[in-house]
Amino acid sequence: MAESSKKPLIMVVNDDGITAPGIRALINFMLDIGDVFVVAPNKSMSGMGHAITINSTLRFTKHDGVPGVEEYSCTGTPVDCVKFGTEVAANGRKVDLVVSGINHGPNSSINVIYSGTMSAAIEGAIEGIPSIGFSLCDHSLDADFSACENIVKTLVRKTLAKGELKGYCLNVNIPAVPAEEIKGIKICRQARAFWEKDFQERKDPMGNSYYWLAGNFNNQDKGTDTDIWALENNYVSVVPTMFDLTAHAALTDLKSFE
Amino acid sequence: MAESSKKPLIMVVNDDGITAPGIRALINFMLDIGDVFVVAPNKSMSGMGHAITINSTLRFTKHDGVPGVEEYSCTGTPVDCVKFGTEVAANGRKVDLVVSGINHGPNSSINVIYSGTMSAAIEGAIEGIPSIGFSLCDHSLDADFSACENIVKTLVRKTLAKGELKGYCLNVNIPAVPAEEIKGIKICRQARAFWEKDFQERKDPMGNSYYWLAGNFNNQDKGTDTDIWALENNYVSVVPTMFDLTAHAALTDLKSFE
Repeated sequence: MAESSKKPLIMVVNDDGITAPGIRALINFMLDIGDVFVVAPNKSMSGMGHAITINSTLRFTKHDGVPGVEEYSCTGTPVDCVKFGTEVAANGRKVDLVVSGINHGPNSSINVIYSGTMSAAIEGAIEGIPSIGFSLCDHSLDADFSACENIVKTLVRKTLAKGELKGYCLNVNIPAVPAEEIKGIKICRQARAFWEKDFQERKDPMGNSYYWLAGNFNNQDKGTDTDIWALENNYVSVVPTMFDLTAHAALTDLKSFE
Repeated sequence: MAESSKKPLIMVVNDDGITAPGIRALINFMLDIGDVFVVAPNKSMSGMGHAITINSTLRFTKHDGVPGVEEYSCTGTPVDCVKFGTEVAANGRKVDLVVSGINHGPNSSINVIYSGTMSAAIEGAIEGIPSIGFSLCDHSLDADFSACENIVKTLVRKTLAKGELKGYCLNVNIPAVPAEEIKGIKICRQARAFWEKDFQERKDPMGNSYYWLAGNFNNQDKGTDTDIWALENNYVSVVPTMFDLTAHAALTDLKSFE
């Protein structure tokens, strides 16, 4: 990475793995805006949440991706990637923006807490770097990311212009519809929606039980200020997402525990 | 689990693995209070955060632990354990309390976000069950949990009496000092402290680089209302910890992004 560049330094990460079409699209979009480098898992790390690798070692391997872009694949988690990116791969240069994704599938509502994509963005925020997680509401590997381009670039430019996001990052979800059907951008809160009936039991060839974690997504939140409402109405949802988990409103309520 | 029992049903989980001394102590403490069952990882899952297992299968094996207590070891993460415990192992009975730990080592401040112990408690809260994560500020495998007994039982009884903790769980850290030196319980906020300088590079016998994620914990937060202040002053810290990550204060600030 050129030390003398005046362009912002942008780190790209994801949780679907370094070869996923979503991160390839995001890298291409970012090349128009800044100096770009990439650290991403060498395999799918969906659902890894904020996991870090502390009981085993980590390897980072140069990845042959976009010519001229430094890319590393990592044996660890999305959060490991961000830590390595900002401390080692950035080579002493200050990272101006961490962008994570584009995830194949939504990370709205409670999914933010299970999502490797969003945990990478949250880790960026913990390090004081403006950070954005992008997700397209389409799980398929051949999802069409073209409608994301304008939205992603617009939000990245606004964020770079704003500078520090104090104590939070952005969780951006994009509806899977053609660009002309997207109605705009909505700043939202995380909907109160949850997974239920999670397990499917099956028998292996020996007759022993094993389980798949699956489940139904249940949204009981009727608010029109939520990310799920925005997505259902063809808006891009942007939720400011923080890492101070203190339930400040409960502090008084619990005083009798002292 | 006896269907007719009037005692509260308590699920015990951890992230250090089902054989760790910390969970053994916690199970014993809970036997005086309720009907107890256990679902815990079959190996250490420290630092797994809110990871769930969605790309591979899960096994749950009956574990020969405390006589009369149903125990399952799990191939997955602490959060997988909670999902299985409440949906399958509870066998249709409502779980009244999820307790996680006792962790070998602190989970104060930002560690809440990396901690499998706390993610298990947060998952309990997501399911609407009163949930508490307990940690002793001593990483050693032969840590002395005897000073925890009164504190753990007191907080569990207070929580059961209170009932629902709306949208949050409790993050309880206990200083590693003799019981008579503990000054009391403090309701706290999560200190603004972070890890830095995370990586140690080493060479393998082939001369190739690998890394250990390590680091220094840096607390710049001078507040006397934080969990770190409480622990440094020999108080038990209790932080209400929530799963709505929306930075509500930032919603207005971001309106110009729409």
